[in-house]
Amino acid sequence: MQIKFTGTYTDLYQIAMGQAYFLNGYHQKSAVFDYFFRKIPFDGGYVVFAGLDILLEALEEFRFTYEEIEYLRSQGYREEYLEYLKDFEFRGSIYGCREGEIVFPTEPILRIEGNLLETQLVETMLLNILNFQSLIATKAARIRSVAPKKIISEFGLRRAQGAGGLFASRAAVIGGADSTSNVLAGKMYGIPISGTMAHSFVQIFDDELTAFQTFARANPDACVLLVDTYNTLKSGVPNAIKVAKEMEKRGQRLLGIRLDSGDLSYFARKSRKMLDDAGLQYVKIAASNQLDEYVVRSLLQQNAPIDIFGVGTNLAIGKPQGALDGVYKLVMADNMARIKVSENIQKTTLPGRKQVYRLIAEDGSFYGADAIGLEDQEYPHKIIAPYDAHKSMQIENISYEPLFQPLIKNGEVVHERKDLDSIKKYAATRLALLPPEYKRFENPHGYKVGISPDIKQTRDELFQKYSGKKMS
Amino acid sequence: MQIKFTGTYTDLYQIAMGQAYFLNGYHQKSAVFDYFFRKIPFDGGYVVFAGLDILLEALEEFRFTYEEIEYLRSQGYREEYLEYLKDFEFRGSIYGCREGEIVFPTEPILRIEGNLLETQLVETMLLNILNFQSLIATKAARIRSVAPKKIISEFGLRRAQGAGGLFASRAAVIGGADSTSNVLAGKMYGIPISGTMAHSFVQIFDDELTAFQTFARANPDACVLLVDTYNTLKSGVPNAIKVAKEMEKRGQRLLGIRLDSGDLSYFARKSRKMLDDAGLQYVKIAASNQLDEYVVRSLLQQNAPIDIFGVGTNLAIGKPQGALDGVYKLVMADNMARIKVSENIQKTTLPGRKQVYRLIAEDGSFYGADAIGLEDQEYPHKIIAPYDAHKSMQIENISYEPLFQPLIKNGEVVHERKDLDSIKKYAATRLALLPPEYKRFENPHGYKVGISPDIKQTRDELFQKYSGKKMS
Repeated sequence: MQIKFTGTYTDLYQIAMGQAYFLNGYHQKSAVFDYFFRKIPFDGGYVVFAGLDILLEALEEFRFTYEEIEYLRSQGYREEYLEYLKDFEFRGSIYGCREGEIVFPTEPILRIEGNLLETQLVETMLLNILNFQSLIATKAARIRSVAPKKIISEFGLRRAQGAGGLFASRAAVIGGADSTSNVLAGKMYGIPISGTMAHSFVQIFDDELTAFQTFARANPDACVLLVDTYNTLKSGVPNAIKVAKEMEKRGQRLLGIRLDSGDLSYFARKSRKMLDDAGLQYVKIAASNQLDEYVVRSLLQQNAPIDIFGVGTNLAIGKPQGALDGVYKLVMADNMARIKVSENIQKTTLPGRKQVYRLIAEDGSFYGADAIGLEDQEYPHKIIAPYDAHKSMQIENISYEPLFQPLIKNGEVVHERKDLDSIKKYAATRLALLPPEYKRFENPHGYKVGISPDIKQTRDELFQKYSGKKMS
Repeated sequence: MQIKFTGTYTDLYQIAMGQAYFLNGYHQKSAVFDYFFRKIPFDGGYVVFAGLDILLEALEEFRFTYEEIEYLRSQGYREEYLEYLKDFEFRGSIYGCREGEIVFPTEPILRIEGNLLETQLVETMLLNILNFQSLIATKAARIRSVAPKKIISEFGLRRAQGAGGLFASRAAVIGGADSTSNVLAGKMYGIPISGTMAHSFVQIFDDELTAFQTFARANPDACVLLVDTYNTLKSGVPNAIKVAKEMEKRGQRLLGIRLDSGDLSYFARKSRKMLDDAGLQYVKIAASNQLDEYVVRSLLQQNAPIDIFGVGTNLAIGKPQGALDGVYKLVMADNMARIKVSENIQKTTLPGRKQVYRLIAEDGSFYGADAIGLEDQEYPHKIIAPYDAHKSMQIENISYEPLFQPLIKNGEVVHERKDLDSIKKYAATRLALLPPEYKRFENPHGYKVGISPDIKQTRDELFQKYSGKKMS
């Protein structure tokens, strides 16, 4: 059983619209789409953009297989269209942010250019890959933010959303997790893998000590003993201490113990004392059980002596939101700016081929505002709040970095692929430049995103043309 | 890029524990595990069990590839163990409920038997497949329950959790969805696929009417026009009516229009009237935009004339829970009953090789209680609430059905594989037998699950042995 990211990894309407474009010769018209999101998950102040390298790989390989063409034939698609799809490759171009960039609502993260058919056909897969990984990287960054010096291991595969667990493990690392329990993710993405032991292992043996001894002999290099199967303080920790002493005699070191139930703060403190009293200061304490950024923060505020946090479901499914609302919107067609109007002004799109500039404060940190300008124009002198024209800001004397760079040109990946560790480091470096008021959990400051006067003018003109109303 | 369900689709600790078992000759000991969950998602009264056929297929194919063995070697696993894993196949047996069964907390859904190594190695994949699909099938059943006669189409792939979207589409159908937008899921699982059109399609053309005409000519058999790009009632619906009339002249019929924003009830009513006034009673109205069981119920309570509900993110990610808390617990080892004790009595497991009986009322509906007995004993005369010994119930004169049947025997699937439509029908048939008080959204009645006196006795003895305390 396998899942391939091929041509049918999409919504049917992409293929149906594609047929309409194709039969009318519209498929060769040029189109530009923006990828962006509207709402930050977790009531947070930022999103860590993730999934890009996976997307680029998938786009390079994007084909309709023989079986897929057969399947579409069985669905009644026209022969001439199927003939075209048979040789279909994505030959468009993508510009945008690096993977690991810190991004904000409304601003484009990627710009996808190409012919109408190819840019439309890849929409669903693009959204599927980027929305989920950005969600999880953001969740992981939040957990990392409250435990900057602790070991964070993701182990959510058992309750992850099917094969989504693979991307979850990858994205968790980008956001700041150190390792995963997911062996396949470790193999596919080069993530350090880690694990402890299950209660079932302890139950199998006649007594807990024998179980611990057996496990330690078989896995001496990364031995973390689960101490709460029977009684944490009366049995689990004392037995772990015995095993640690036996390991010392063999020239080995017990890596740690794991607490998986009860009051983690209390048990961590008591266990730490027992370990220390036995001269086992080096034995780490791992904790798990329904952890998220709030529980981890609370444990550390109580000074719980926990070294390793095993975070499962809440991280791997990005609870409570479970989805980033990223969208893919047409902004140019046939070399003309396009707009999608909406009664809800926030849902009216920003037309044109755009660049995003990150303004930089004098100390090198993020200034607190990004500027969206037109790609073929200079850096704008001024930006305006996209949905509140009364708010504007002069930016001509502020340093900036353009965030968009070429990623794919005419179907070829031109962006230097980074290993996961470099992406993770980039995310951490960028997040370090984001001032703390945007990172707090409670009512974080809203990062400003403004548009250039020329974008505003085009948007307002198109709005009036299509809605018949003046943009207020 | 592809994702395979092979040996490393697991948590590292399974492989580490496996090495400890193997090196000590424990891998050949017999073991029995139960799969069950503790809490019904969505504050509901039932769960639709889904994912079974996918699991059985994955287990039949479960192997460690050459690359996986190499990878484990690079992680320091022992040669003799790797040699064993090279030829590893799952040769165990599984008994349990049919896919589509209605199941309740605490009761076993599957019983997994085999040697210790094989039963342990498959845990993570089993949980990953079953937990997620059962979550989504349950969500879909809730949506279906409020719209029994409407068309429900799942189209959540763009915000699904990566490749989890494939399983989401399959499970949604088991729970009651009619179709999916996910073309790959359609192809892999034989699900009817459906789709409409995107706003971008309308934006591409100089005007909405041309867009509609072009789409209708290219896709006359399943043409649903999206009418809210500019102005639903002034432009979208009138243009759709024009196109419908043109289609009639060609001997074709417009399938429907889609509303994707604004007050869906209001727009549906107004649109319906406009369509009817034009003699287009047959044109259906589809609605989408953040739908879930509550919004669909509300729309239908308002008598909104909507025929097709397109349900995306909330269905495909099983919002708000996002995960079913299914677990896999050791209940026998070496032919002896085993227990996991816990301070939280609800987390103390039920030992032994068990069968589940569904009690049946005189009218054929579900009685409101399931009985858990021992596999090698007769149907019990009496059941006791597992965590409240004061509550018991005589059941000897009540009809019953055993829910467990053989699914895999010694690695071979013995259960007759059903197509998805049969599984869906089975779920619907079973759900129809569940009385309404268990199906309501607000404070549903709790379905009783009781254990036989012999299970209780074994559990209590083992509890005392391992915890030192008497089970109260």
